[in-house]
Amino acid sequence: QVQTAAGVREVPKQIARKTVTIMKTKNILIVTKARDNDLITITQELALWLLETPRYDRDIGVCVYVDEQLRNSRRFDADGIIQKDQRFARMLNYWTPELCWSNPDLFDLVVTLGGDGTVLYTSWLFQRIVPPVLSFAYGSLGFLTNFDYHDWTNILDEALNNGIKVNLRMRHAVQRAEQDTVNESEQYEVLNEVVIDRGPSPFISSLDLFGDDHLLTIVQADGLILSTPTGSTAYSLSAGGSLVHPEIPATLVTPICPHTLSFRPMLLPDSMVLRVSVPKESRSKSYASFDGRCRVPLRQGDYVTVRASQFPYRQVVQSRNEWIDSISRTLSWNVRDKQKAFT
Amino acid sequence: QVQTAAGVREVPKQIARKTVTIMKTKNILIVTKARDNDLITITQELALWLLETPRYDRDIGVCVYVDEQLRNSRRFDADGIIQKDQRFARMLNYWTPELCWSNPDLFDLVVTLGGDGTVLYTSWLFQRIVPPVLSFAYGSLGFLTNFDYHDWTNILDEALNNGIKVNLRMRHAVQRAEQDTVNESEQYEVLNEVVIDRGPSPFISSLDLFGDDHLLTIVQADGLILSTPTGSTAYSLSAGGSLVHPEIPATLVTPICPHTLSFRPMLLPDSMVLRVSVPKESRSKSYASFDGRCRVPLRQGDYVTVRASQFPYRQVVQSRNEWIDSISRTLSWNVRDKQKAFT
Amino acid sequence: QVQTAAGVREVPKQIARKTVTIMKTKNILIVTKARDNDLITITQELALWLLETPRYDRDIGVCVYVDEQLRNSRRFDADGIIQKDQRFARMLNYWTPELCWSNPDLFDLVVTLGGDGTVLYTSWLFQRIVPPVLSFAYGSLGFLTNFDYHDWTNILDEALNNGIKVNLRMRHAVQRAEQDTVNESEQYEVLNEVVIDRGPSPFISSLDLFGDDHLLTIVQADGLILSTPTGSTAYSLSAGGSLVHPEIPATLVTPICPHTLSFRPMLLPDSMVLRVSVPKESRSKSYASFDGRCRVPLRQGDYVTVRASQFPYRQVVQSRNEWIDSISRTLSWNVRDKQKAFT
Amino acid sequence: QVQTAAGVREVPKQIARKTVTIMKTKNILIVTKARDNDLITITQELALWLLETPRYDRDIGVCVYVDEQLRNSRRFDADGIIQKDQRFARMLNYWTPELCWSNPDLFDLVVTLGGDGTVLYTSWLFQRIVPPVLSFAYGSLGFLTNFDYHDWTNILDEALNNGIKVNLRMRHAVQRAEQDTVNESEQYEVLNEVVIDRGPSPFISSLDLFGDDHLLTIVQADGLILSTPTGSTAYSLSAGGSLVHPEIPATLVTPICPHTLSFRPMLLPDSMVLRVSVPKESRSKSYASFDGRCRVPLRQGDYVTVRASQFPYRQVVQSRNEWIDSISRTLSWNVRDKQKAFT
Repeated sequence: QVQTAAGVREVPKQIARKTVTIMKTKNILIVTKARDNDLITITQELALWLLETPRYDRDIGVCVYVDEQLRNSRRFDADGIIQKDQRFARMLNYWTPELCWSNPDLFDLVVTLGGDGTVLYTSWLFQRIVPPVLSFAYGSLGFLTNFDYHDWTNILDEALNNGIKVNLRMRHAVQRAEQDTVNESEQYEVLNEVVIDRGPSPFISSLDLFGDDHLLTIVQADGLILSTPTGSTAYSLSAGGSLVHPEIPATLVTPICPHTLSFRPMLLPDSMVLRVSVPKESRSKSYASFDGRCRVPLRQGDYVTVRASQFPYRQVVQSRNEWIDSISRTLSWNVRDKQKAFT
Repeated sequence: QVQTAAGVREVPKQIARKTVTIMKTKNILIVTKARDNDLITITQELALWLLETPRYDRDIGVCVYVDEQLRNSRRFDADGIIQKDQRFARMLNYWTPELCWSNPDLFDLVVTLGGDGTVLYTSWLFQRIVPPVLSFAYGSLGFLTNFDYHDWTNILDEALNNGIKVNLRMRHAVQRAEQDTVNESEQYEVLNEVVIDRGPSPFISSLDLFGDDHLLTIVQADGLILSTPTGSTAYSLSAGGSLVHPEIPATLVTPICPHTLSFRPMLLPDSMVLRVSVPKESRSKSYASFDGRCRVPLRQGDYVTVRASQFPYRQVVQSRNEWIDSISRTLSWNVRDKQKAFT
Repeated sequence: QVQTAAGVREVPKQIARKTVTIMKTKNILIVTKARDNDLITITQELALWLLETPRYDRDIGVCVYVDEQLRNSRRFDADGIIQKDQRFARMLNYWTPELCWSNPDLFDLVVTLGGDGTVLYTSWLFQRIVPPVLSFAYGSLGFLTNFDYHDWTNILDEALNNGIKVNLRMRHAVQRAEQDTVNESEQYEVLNEVVIDRGPSPFISSLDLFGDDHLLTIVQADGLILSTPTGSTAYSLSAGGSLVHPEIPATLVTPICPHTLSFRPMLLPDSMVLRVSVPKESRSKSYASFDGRCRVPLRQGDYVTVRASQFPYRQVVQSRNEWIDSISRTLSWNVRDKQKAFT
Repeated sequence: QVQTAAGVREVPKQIARKTVTIMKTKNILIVTKARDNDLITITQELALWLLETPRYDRDIGVCVYVDEQLRNSRRFDADGIIQKDQRFARMLNYWTPELCWSNPDLFDLVVTLGGDGTVLYTSWLFQRIVPPVLSFAYGSLGFLTNFDYHDWTNILDEALNNGIKVNLRMRHAVQRAEQDTVNESEQYEVLNEVVIDRGPSPFISSLDLFGDDHLLTIVQADGLILSTPTGSTAYSLSAGGSLVHPEIPATLVTPICPHTLSFRPMLLPDSMVLRVSVPKESRSKSYASFDGRCRVPLRQGDYVTVRASQFPYRQVVQSRNEWIDSISRTLSWNVRDKQKAFT
C-alpha cells in the first residue's frame, strides 16, 4: 500500500509521462452494478478465482473486496465461498463508499465490470487517491473500458504475476459556490467533464467565464462543457470539440449550441483556474452536473470553479498507443472504408 | 548577449511557464520590408531615435542593425544619420540573413514593423536561437503583432528602461526526407504550421500519418495541417481546428476538406514525433509548405517529420492575458453584439 | 377580406415566388406584450394615430383591434380615445386568441411591437390563415422584426397608402400522436422549428426518424430539430445547421449534440412527411416543443409528424433581398472586418 | 426519340416530382474508359448481349453505340460480333463526343460502366439534352453509380422489358466571362459543382459573390464551392456543407477554409443567378473548375455565373428512397454501430 500512496503523491508531475509499472497487487476491489443478477454471478466467479488461484509463492490467492450490498446476496453466496477454504473468511471483504473515501490505500487494484458508467462511478468513489483501475468491457472495448472480458483470466494472471502498467488521467477538481461562499464539502473530482446548462429551463443560459479571475467571455448558449482530455471523447465531442490526447495538460472549453456563429471551441492550460458564474441579472438559473451525475442548481450569483486536480485517475493499460487505437475502433474516427465514399 | 543565449538554452522547459523579464537590451535589430518606401522612412526615424536617445547612464543610445539592403538606400540615408554623431558610424550596423543564422546572440532585441508575414519572416531568419521579438502593428493589433505603432516611443522607452517581458512560443522542427534519406540541411523551424497538400494536383492527397512510428491514420483529404498552438489562430482555424492557448504543449492535427465525415481535428502531445509520408503507391505527389513559405514537392516515398523544436520563438508581451484578449479583438470570437442576433 | 382569404388559398404554390402586393388595409390588429407598461403606452399612441389619420379619401382612419386585456387598462385609456371622436367607439375593437383562431379574415394587417417572441406568438395566434404581419423592432432589426420602430409613421403611411409587399414563409404542421392515436386537436403550426429533446432527463434521446414511412435513421443525441427555412437562423444554426433561404421548399434535419461523428445536418424536400417517434423500448421519454412553446412529453410509442403547412406565415417586407442583408446585419455572417484577422 | 426530347423540355418543372417511367428503349449508348482492357472485354460482352437478346416481339435485340475508339480495337473485335449476325453491321454503331453534343436524341438510354468519374464524363458529353443514364458500379454502389454490375443481365432485362424509372437531377449552367465579355461557347453543364479556388497560388482568394446582381458577401477563403444538391455528397460535404436531397431546388454556397469564424454554409434558391467575380484589385488570380474538370484561370475582373440549367441530368433509379439509403451506405452517415461509442 505504501508504494501506491507514494506513487500518487508524485503523480501530478507525471501526467505527461510514460507508463508506470506496479507490482504485487494483493488487495483487489471489484466494482459493478450490485443489482444486476448476471453481474453478481460474474462477480462471484471472479472473486472465487482471485481467492483460490495461488499467488506470490503461496498456495492461496489475494484478498478481495466486493460491494457491501452482496454480503447477504443469495446469488453471491458468500457462505458457499468460505466453505471452500476457511482462510477466505478473512480474505473476502466488503467495501462501502465510506471505506473507499476514507481508506483508498487499502486497495492495490480496482477491477470494474460494466460500461463507462461503472468507470465514472469508480472515479466518484475515490475522491482523493485513486488506486489503479483495470476495467473490463463486455462487448466492444471503450476508451475507459479497455480490457476484453472474454480473456479475463489471462489478463488478470498477467496483471498479478507480471505487474500492471498504469497511465495517469488528469481529473478536474470542481467546487460550487453559492453567493461567493464556497462550501468546502462540495468538491467533485471529475474524470470527464463538468457541464453547466439550462436544464429544464426554456431560456438559454447566460454565463460568465473567467480564467484566473480575468473575464474570458460571456457565454450565451444551451450550456458550456469544461472537459478534461479524457472527456474529449465524450460529451465535448458531441458538441463539436476536438479529440485531445490524455497526456496533454489542457482544459477544453466547448459550448453547447452557442448563440453566435463564432464561438469556436477553445483549449486552455490546465494551470489556469476557470470559473463559470451565473450573472446576478440572469433571467433564469442554470444547472451543473459532474460526469453526468447530480445535477445541482446554480442560482444567480452562484458559480463553479474548475482546476486540475491533485488526484489523477489511474488507468491500467496495455500499451501507450491504446488511446489512438481506441479512437478508430470506438469512434470510427476517419476509418478507411468511409473514404471510398467520395471516389 | 550571454544571458540571452543562456536563457534560450533553458527555454524548452519553460514554455508552459510565466513570462521572463529581460533587462538592458543594447543591440537592436530592425526587420521590415526593405522595398516599401514608407517603411524605409519609418525605419530611418526609428533607427535614429534608438541611436540618439540616451540610455544606461550614457549620453547616447543603443546599437542598431538594419537590413543590408538599406546600406545604399538614398531614402534611408545612412550618411545623413552618421553626420549627426560620428559615434553612430560604429553603432549603425547592417544585418543579412547569414548573420542572423550564424550569430543570433549578437542581438538583444528584434523590432519588427509589418504584419504577420514580417513576423513569420523573422522566425525564419532565426533558425536556431531567436532573440526576443517586439512586433508593431500598423492598424489593428494581431496575435503576433501585439504592439501599437502609434505609441512606439513610449513602448520602446518602457522596454529599454524597464525591461521586456518575454513569452516563449513553441516552434516545430520539420525535416523533409526523400526516399528515407533525411537531408540534414533541410530543416525548417516553423512558428505556425507545416501544411502538406495536393498543390496544383487535381487529385486528393493520400497521406500516411505516423506518431512515434505508429500508424495513426490514413488521410484522404485536400491536405493536412500540423500546427503549433500559435498556429491555431491561423490556417488550422480556417480548416475547423480549435483555438489552443500557446502555453499548451500540443500539436494540432487538422485535416483540410477530409473525405470522411468523421475526421475530427485532433491534438497530440508535443513529445510525440509525427511523420507524414506520401505512400509509394499514391497516384500523385503532394507538397509541403512551412509557415506559408517554399512549397516543396513530396514525391511517392518522401515524408516530413515534425517535432517540438529546441528553439522556441520569443515574443515580447505586455501581459499574460494578451492571447485571450486578442482572440476576441482579432477574431471576433464569440463577441457579444452577435449574440443579440437570436433573441 | 375576401382578397386576403383568396390570396391565402393560393399561397402554397407561391412560396417560392416573388412578393405579392396587397392594397387597402382597413382593419389592423396590434399584437404586443399586454403587461409591459411601456408597450401599452406605445400601443395607445399607435392605435390613436391609426384611428385619426385620414385614409382612403375619408376624413378618418382605419379600424384597430387591440388586446382584450387592454379593454379596462387605465394606462391604455380606451375612454379617452373614444372621447376624441365618437366614431372611434365602433372603430376600436378588441381581439382575443379565440377571435384570431375563428375569424382571421377579419384582419387586413397585423402590426407587432416586440421581439421574435412576439412574432412567434402571432404565428401561434393564427393557426390557419395568417393575415399579413408587419413587425417592428425596437433596437437592432431581426429576421422577423424587419421594420425600424423609430420610423413607424413613415412606414405605416407608406403601407396604408401604397400597399404592402408580402412574402410567404412556409410553416410546418405538426401533429402529436400518443400510441398511434393522433389527437386531431393537437396540431401546431410552427414558423421556426419543432424540437424533440431529452428535456430534464439525464439520458440521451433515442429517436426513430421516418420520411414518408421509410426509416431514415436512428438518432442518438441530445435531441433533434426539424426546422423550416425561416428557422434556419434560429436554433438549428446554433446546433450547426446551414443558413437556408426562406424561398427554398425544404425541411432541415439538424441533430443536437449527436453521438456519432458522422451525423451531418440534412435537408429534405418539404413534400416529404417526417415522423419522429420514441421507440417502445427507449429507456426514457422525450419532449417536444413548438417554436419554443409548450414542451409536451413524448412517451415510449408516441410520435410527432411534420409536414409543410397549407397555411404559410405572411411577412410584410420592404425588398426581396431583405433576408440576405439581415444575415450579415444580424448574425455578422462572414462580415469583413473579421476577415482582416488572418492577414 | 421524340418522346425523349419532349420529356426533356418539360423536365425543368418536374425536378421536384416523382419518377418518370420510360418504355421501349431501342438505342443504347455505352460509356466507359476506352483504354482499360478489362472494361473493353465487358463492353464487348454487354454489346453482344444487347444486340442478340430478342426484344419487342422480334428475334433480335436493340441497337448499340460504343466508343469510336473501339472501332479498330482487336480486343473489342467488331468483326467478330458482326460475323454472328449480319444485321449487327447496321445495329452496332460508334459514338464520338461530337455526335453526343449534336444528336443526343439518337439515344434512348446510356449505360455507364465505371465510377463517379465516368458518370461526370457522361454528364459532360451531353451539354444539352441528357438521355436517361443507367450507371453500374463494380464494387460498392455510389450515389450516381446505383446499379450493381453483378446483376447486370437481370437489371437490363427489367429495364428493357418493363421500362426504366428516371429521376431528374438539376445541373448548373455555368458561364465564364473575361472582363465582362461572356464567351457564349464557354458554357459548362455541371452535375456536381463549380469550384473557384486559389489553385497553385500561395495567396488566399478574395472573391465577390453576387445573387441576382446584389452583392451577397466578400469571400476570403481558399475557395468557394457552388454545388447542386447532387454535389452535396461530394466536395461540398468535405468542406462542411449539409447533405441536401436532390429534389430540393437549391444551390449550396460552401466556403473552403474561410478566413472568418462566421462563414456558415448557405443555401440559396436555384431561381437566383449567382455570380462569382475576382475583384479588379485582387492581388492574385483564381481558378475555376467544373465537376473537377478543366481548371481555367479567372483573372482580375473575370467572373463566372451559375444558374439552374434547362437540361437536367436524367438518372435511372430503382426506387425513390434510393438517395437516403445510399447516404448511410456510402457515407456511413450516422450509422448505428458508431453510436455505441459514447455509451
